Amino acid sequence: MLEDVGAFSYVPKNDLENRAGRLCSLLAGAGVDFAVIIQNVDRFYFTGTMQKGVVIIPVDNDPLVFVEKGFERAEAETPFEIIPVKNDRQVRDILLGRNILPGKAGLELDVLPVNTFERTQRVVGFREYADISEFIRSVRMIKSSYEIDQLRQSGEMLSRVFEAAPKEIREGRTELEIEAVLVAKGRTIGHHGLMRMRGLNQEMVMMTVQAGFTGTVPTFLDAPITGSGVTPAIPQGSSFKRVERGIPVTIDYGGGYNGYITDETRTFVVGELKEIFRKPCETAREIIDETLRYARPGIDSTELFLRAQKMADDRGLADYFMGHGEGQVPFIGHGIGLEINELPILTGRHRRPLEEGMVFAFEPKFVLPGHGAVGIEIDCIVTANGIERLTSSPIDIVCL
Amino acid sequence: MLEDVGAFSYVPKNDLENRAGRLCSLLAGAGVDFAVIIQNVDRFYFTGTMQKGVVIIPVDNDPLVFVEKGFERAEAETPFEIIPVKNDRQVRDILLGRNILPGKAGLELDVLPVNTFERTQRVVGFREYADISEFIRSVRMIKSSYEIDQLRQSGEMLSRVFEAAPKEIREGRTELEIEAVLVAKGRTIGHHGLMRMRGLNQEMVMMTVQAGFTGTVPTFLDAPITGSGVTPAIPQGSSFKRVERGIPVTIDYGGGYNGYITDETRTFVVGELKEIFRKPCETAREIIDETLRYARPGIDSTELFLRAQKMADDRGLADYFMGHGEGQVPFIGHGIGLEINELPILTGRHRRPLEEGMVFAFEPKFVLPGHGAVGIEIDCIVTANGIERLTSSPIDIVCL
Repeated sequence: MLEDVGAFSYVPKNDLENRAGRLCSLLAGAGVDFAVIIQNVDRFYFTGTMQKGVVIIPVDNDPLVFVEKGFERAEAETPFEIIPVKNDRQVRDILLGRNILPGKAGLELDVLPVNTFERTQRVVGFREYADISEFIRSVRMIKSSYEIDQLRQSGEMLSRVFEAAPKEIREGRTELEIEAVLVAKGRTIGHHGLMRMRGLNQEMVMMTVQAGFTGTVPTFLDAPITGSGVTPAIPQGSSFKRVERGIPVTIDYGGGYNGYITDETRTFVVGELKEIFRKPCETAREIIDETLRYARPGIDSTELFLRAQKMADDRGLADYFMGHGEGQVPFIGHGIGLEINELPILTGRHRRPLEEGMVFAFEPKFVLPGHGAVGIEIDCIVTANGIERLTSSPIDIVCL
Repeated sequence: MLEDVGAFSYVPKNDLENRAGRLCSLLAGAGVDFAVIIQNVDRFYFTGTMQKGVVIIPVDNDPLVFVEKGFERAEAETPFEIIPVKNDRQVRDILLGRNILPGKAGLELDVLPVNTFERTQRVVGFREYADISEFIRSVRMIKSSYEIDQLRQSGEMLSRVFEAAPKEIREGRTELEIEAVLVAKGRTIGHHGLMRMRGLNQEMVMMTVQAGFTGTVPTFLDAPITGSGVTPAIPQGSSFKRVERGIPVTIDYGGGYNGYITDETRTFVVGELKEIFRKPCETAREIIDETLRYARPGIDSTELFLRAQKMADDRGLADYFMGHGEGQVPFIGHGIGLEINELPILTGRHRRPLEEGMVFAFEPKFVLPGHGAVGIEIDCIVTANGIERLTSSPIDIVCL
């Protein structure tokens, strides 16, 4: 029955086995005997279900899915062994019975709150432990063909929403009005309903529309164009700012299909684009073209940032590249998948060669303080031969 | 300029001083010398700004707002001293210089990830520490008149969205279509854009529409009616299920104004409500009436749950009250404010007398497995004399 009302395509068993296998190789290398997976997205990634409970992945065996609630759904969703429990206090005996305990546990210390960690340590009863969050993030960084297919469907949704944008952008309309109708369009065709970002304080709205100075306000969020929002309590996103003739309107939107998030940005303008924005717009486009030509497996991700930065610099735009002043961010792209801040991060700081199966958003943007922001963001798949775009949406600035 | 594009009403200084003062009394009682506040919502609550950084609240002095990014906004938003820093490594020397260090630190251990905690301990350099999350939650539980005014405006928004609901609910329409247009309505009039829930794995969509069996599917979320959602990756919320004649449609929605979240549910039906749903509908209404008559400061919150449960029991509905089978939840209400899972929790388990200034959602709901769910949810303010509703929306089931 659930299959009739949603996109209930379950994660294929061989994909799940491959994911657990790759994690276990890393665990084995670090002397970790079993992973304790608690965060909901990680649990879904490794088992195919997000129902309530904890997942144990022994280094030499299939994952054990302890389920406290949502048993029926868990059974339909995961091919692995499900162990129904009333709560996590029953986990210990089962692990002892299977000789998984005692042993060194690996945990998601980047997201596990201190109290949750201490409770888990007490009830599961491991003594030694290690942080395996970087292992998990690096396994999740490489997408399977099943995952790329989910991302393509998410990108398809995103493209349909962007196709509807031109007729919604009119002089005098507020950012919020434009956002509301476009987000509704995505949800109607089945957008999964949430935008996920890993870590404490990491939150993001589904779409942000900026129509002028609101796109230039620096705020806490690590993004080049964050928007002012409508309140200091949520200082990001669209506002009541109205569209003006000649001033660019950026729309940054994330598609959401079967858990997989895409993330692209388009720039629109009513009438003729004001002179001041033209060079930044052309440069963003040139950076995209150059990157699509240049990037391929083996190229270091720092190169992508540094070459883009140099192109901005050569055109006298260094001060506006990826934000302005304190709002400038040190990256030009980020991995996407089940969360919007996956690996790789495309920054000048941390070296990481591109690998086949990475999928990332690439977003050259320029912020002209007080005036407005422009930019393009596309999603890219690293293939054996180079870079392939996830969607085929046109990326030129659209004049209305 | 920002004031022109949003609801930028800043938090009054005396409210902020009162909040810090109440926290400091609790800190002093527990021998804690200063609080280290890192979570974004707590930082906003205690300072009025959510810009990037850490907040230190000495037990005997005003909060210090360390800001790494969003300096200009922070200045407009908080009346407290702002200390610009490049990163948290600069905090230690300043605290030493002000004799705040050495001393016992209090931290939000319910939400702080282990890695963040360890980094904070290392760079700030405290040795002794304590968990102050329950202090913070109990301070936030009691709302000021300013906060109640924000909640009323959030409730006003919610009421306007519910007023638009009847003309959107038609036989054959999907849950997603109804949700999309109503959420768009709220966003257009300035909904702040996010729904916040405290803690790891706590996430919730802004609205969920259930039009039949989808309202009866148990899932991981701790709520009586969660919805099936459209994917195992986000197993909650609306789906492609279509509205049927005679089957109740529940709409659970959260208003969002200036950070403050409201949370109400209405039940609608196209045509005549099927017999099986009538007694549950009447009982939900009777539980609301009885609670509004009965509850007042001093009454224990457990009473509210237990009396409602007994009313359901007396009418032969015990098996369907607040969910069915493994989907049954042990509470009938929860505090609301900046997050949707604030104190008090109205459960039969933890005693806590009602106090003036508490604001909570109260949600008697019934789940009839395979058939559908019904229920009402209202937001309540505990006043000196009893309970006042936050909105004046009619709560009877609406027949269309």
